[in-house]
Amino acid sequence: MEINIGIIGYGVIGEGVVKIIHENSKLIENRTGIKLNIKKVADLDLKKKRSVELEEGILTFDANEILENPEIDIVVELIGGYEPARKFILKALENKKHVVTANKAVIAKHCKEIFESAEKNNVQLKFEASVAGCIPIIRSLQQSYASEKISSIYGILNGTTNYILTRIREGMSYEDALKKAQEFGFAERDPSFDVEGKDAAQKLVILATLVYNTNIKDEVYTEGITHIEKMDMEYSNELGYVIKLLAIARFCNNEITLRVHPTMIPKNHQLSSVNNELNAVYVVGRNLGNVMFYGRGAGQLPTATVIVGDIIDIAKNKGKFSFNFFSNTPVKNIDSVKSRYYLRCSVVDKPGVLAKIAEVLGRNKISLAGVWQKEENKDFVPLVMTTHEALEKDIRKAIDEINRLDVINGKAIVIRIEDFS
Amino acid sequence: MEINIGIIGYGVIGEGVVKIIHENSKLIENRTGIKLNIKKVADLDLKKKRSVELEEGILTFDANEILENPEIDIVVELIGGYEPARKFILKALENKKHVVTANKAVIAKHCKEIFESAEKNNVQLKFEASVAGCIPIIRSLQQSYASEKISSIYGILNGTTNYILTRIREGMSYEDALKKAQEFGFAERDPSFDVEGKDAAQKLVILATLVYNTNIKDEVYTEGITHIEKMDMEYSNELGYVIKLLAIARFCNNEITLRVHPTMIPKNHQLSSVNNELNAVYVVGRNLGNVMFYGRGAGQLPTATVIVGDIIDIAKNKGKFSFNFFSNTPVKNIDSVKSRYYLRCSVVDKPGVLAKIAEVLGRNKISLAGVWQKEENKDFVPLVMTTHEALEKDIRKAIDEINRLDVINGKAIVIRIEDFS
Repeated sequence: MEINIGIIGYGVIGEGVVKIIHENSKLIENRTGIKLNIKKVADLDLKKKRSVELEEGILTFDANEILENPEIDIVVELIGGYEPARKFILKALENKKHVVTANKAVIAKHCKEIFESAEKNNVQLKFEASVAGCIPIIRSLQQSYASEKISSIYGILNGTTNYILTRIREGMSYEDALKKAQEFGFAERDPSFDVEGKDAAQKLVILATLVYNTNIKDEVYTEGITHIEKMDMEYSNELGYVIKLLAIARFCNNEITLRVHPTMIPKNHQLSSVNNELNAVYVVGRNLGNVMFYGRGAGQLPTATVIVGDIIDIAKNKGKFSFNFFSNTPVKNIDSVKSRYYLRCSVVDKPGVLAKIAEVLGRNKISLAGVWQKEENKDFVPLVMTTHEALEKDIRKAIDEINRLDVINGKAIVIRIEDFS
Repeated sequence: MEINIGIIGYGVIGEGVVKIIHENSKLIENRTGIKLNIKKVADLDLKKKRSVELEEGILTFDANEILENPEIDIVVELIGGYEPARKFILKALENKKHVVTANKAVIAKHCKEIFESAEKNNVQLKFEASVAGCIPIIRSLQQSYASEKISSIYGILNGTTNYILTRIREGMSYEDALKKAQEFGFAERDPSFDVEGKDAAQKLVILATLVYNTNIKDEVYTEGITHIEKMDMEYSNELGYVIKLLAIARFCNNEITLRVHPTMIPKNHQLSSVNNELNAVYVVGRNLGNVMFYGRGAGQLPTATVIVGDIIDIAKNKGKFSFNFFSNTPVKNIDSVKSRYYLRCSVVDKPGVLAKIAEVLGRNKISLAGVWQKEENKDFVPLVMTTHEALEKDIRKAIDEINRLDVINGKAIVIRIEDFS
């Protein structure tokens, strides 16, 4: 099945969407049976040098070439902000086109009007990328948890502030941390929208709307991070806390609490280890217990990935299961898998024991990364070793030989090490 | 819209599904416009005392009353195991009924036959609950990340073993930890399926099938945790690692690696803080970067929640956006929100200062949890206080007064404390 897409707004995210569709179109078609065609891309700047080439005739100055185009099935709105984004989205819906958007501002402020138009016009509207980048929180709340009474949502929804707070925790001043965030592209030249908590507040409104089915207006108490000093991070640390900019939605006594502010959270809480520019959403439900999602909240390709996910989801033939076993990729035999290893043997406490074991390992092409032996007054003492990367079959052969050495008591324990590098 | 459901298997999870549909049916209808009717429930044991009452005529001994019932739209298979689950699922699909299942065994082993039957019969098949309980990993991989090349998946997919390893890390022996897991209902009387890694291996097959589109047979290298000793956990800890039972799928050089085994992972990695019976799935994608999902991997209500999510997802009128602003829950004014607070003031280093500040706080109904003042040879020294729960409006009033005291330099810093209790 072919699906024609029109993209309005060809900035960083728009280029990411085009890039993913160009590069992975075969994979998408194999997986879903859907061929995505980028029919038109509208942008006000036609002369800018782009990192992704579009065929001639695709790029246009005029959004109406998309909105009024009878061939286009899905409109992807990526210009951001309130207007003309709102106008474009409503026009697309009225023209019976499905809409995918990453625009948190317009959804947070105009969701009632936009949702009602989508429903009236009998088309779909998806906005997964508007909150927490590549974290599929909107789909999860609306689908998997559609029956659930969500009591609280705690979100680290803004990457800029989380990056700055992480640097302050490491000892930087707020000013230096902000400068660093700007250098690395995690903060805008005018950072106020992020550092004052407004970006997180818009995202919180979207999440709260979805789970509480209430039309929320400007009712989020919002406090930024500009007053956070290194000293407060240090005192927090001594008290067992970390300071994060949390966006909190809570349902209690038939009232909703909505607030965004710096918050001290216990060091052992999952959210406290969400660092740098990463985002996380922690959801508490009556039946679910606690669930957490964690990932990149911004960035070209993470964001574009979930936008393409929304497009595919709309394009899929609904009401039907579809899965293609198109690949015959073989499963590797464990013998040829490489890993680092932890080895522990119980050995006799005599000179030359380590030499014997090291000889077996060396002969089997296994090189040691570290060796530890603790002093104990026993006949047998534990000898702990870690290896550099080695082949599974070599380790097995070596362990077989080591287990047969007369200096060993019982069998060696082998545990694989994963450094995620 | 009314949707008729037949449930096959009325055990713990089946009762959970009925319970959620009974209790939240109004919420589900408000949110989605769908009224879920439980038409029939089949179980071999009709006499067992149930925690949820079914109306007369609903419970039956005969699964065919569901499979052959022309009124039933969705069959929910919850008996588990290979047979007769496989037979029932195939029969339901052939009879053009959508199927929701939580059965990891039958999906891992018979996915090709079952997926093909669903596709041929033009009906839907959902199995979110088969992997990692209430974590929506299947939907996320298939929808949000449908365009993505997933390079690796690292999963803590078995709650029993994660619970046992957490206890061993705290100093228990394997045997005591297993006993404790059995006492708390996290381990079966015969725990071998869990502790030998077989449960995790079945779940890994499902995830790998979905992302690599390959029909995987018995090709998972599987090693359990029965040989893990307290001593190894201690050595790991000294080396900066934690031992977890990881299920790993990796795509590299056009080969897939599939393995389940105890693995030492760095203490600072997100997966290392997933403790007790909780599950987590860590996904690495080329465009996404790293994403992690975390939550309950088992249990009646968490599992039943995502099963009901699957049912609603099938029942939804596809191709159409639907959202109801049915609630008018008010947003609470920040003044009446309660929190604990961290306060820091810069004060003159003279006797009586703390008394003055404490007087203001006490008069505003704010009680102190702790006070710290460090010795410094300066005119002004930092005074740090934490409070018990207080009202936002009281704190503001108190801070206004404190800022006007003559013993204070500049303004007090206020940070809210969230203990997640």
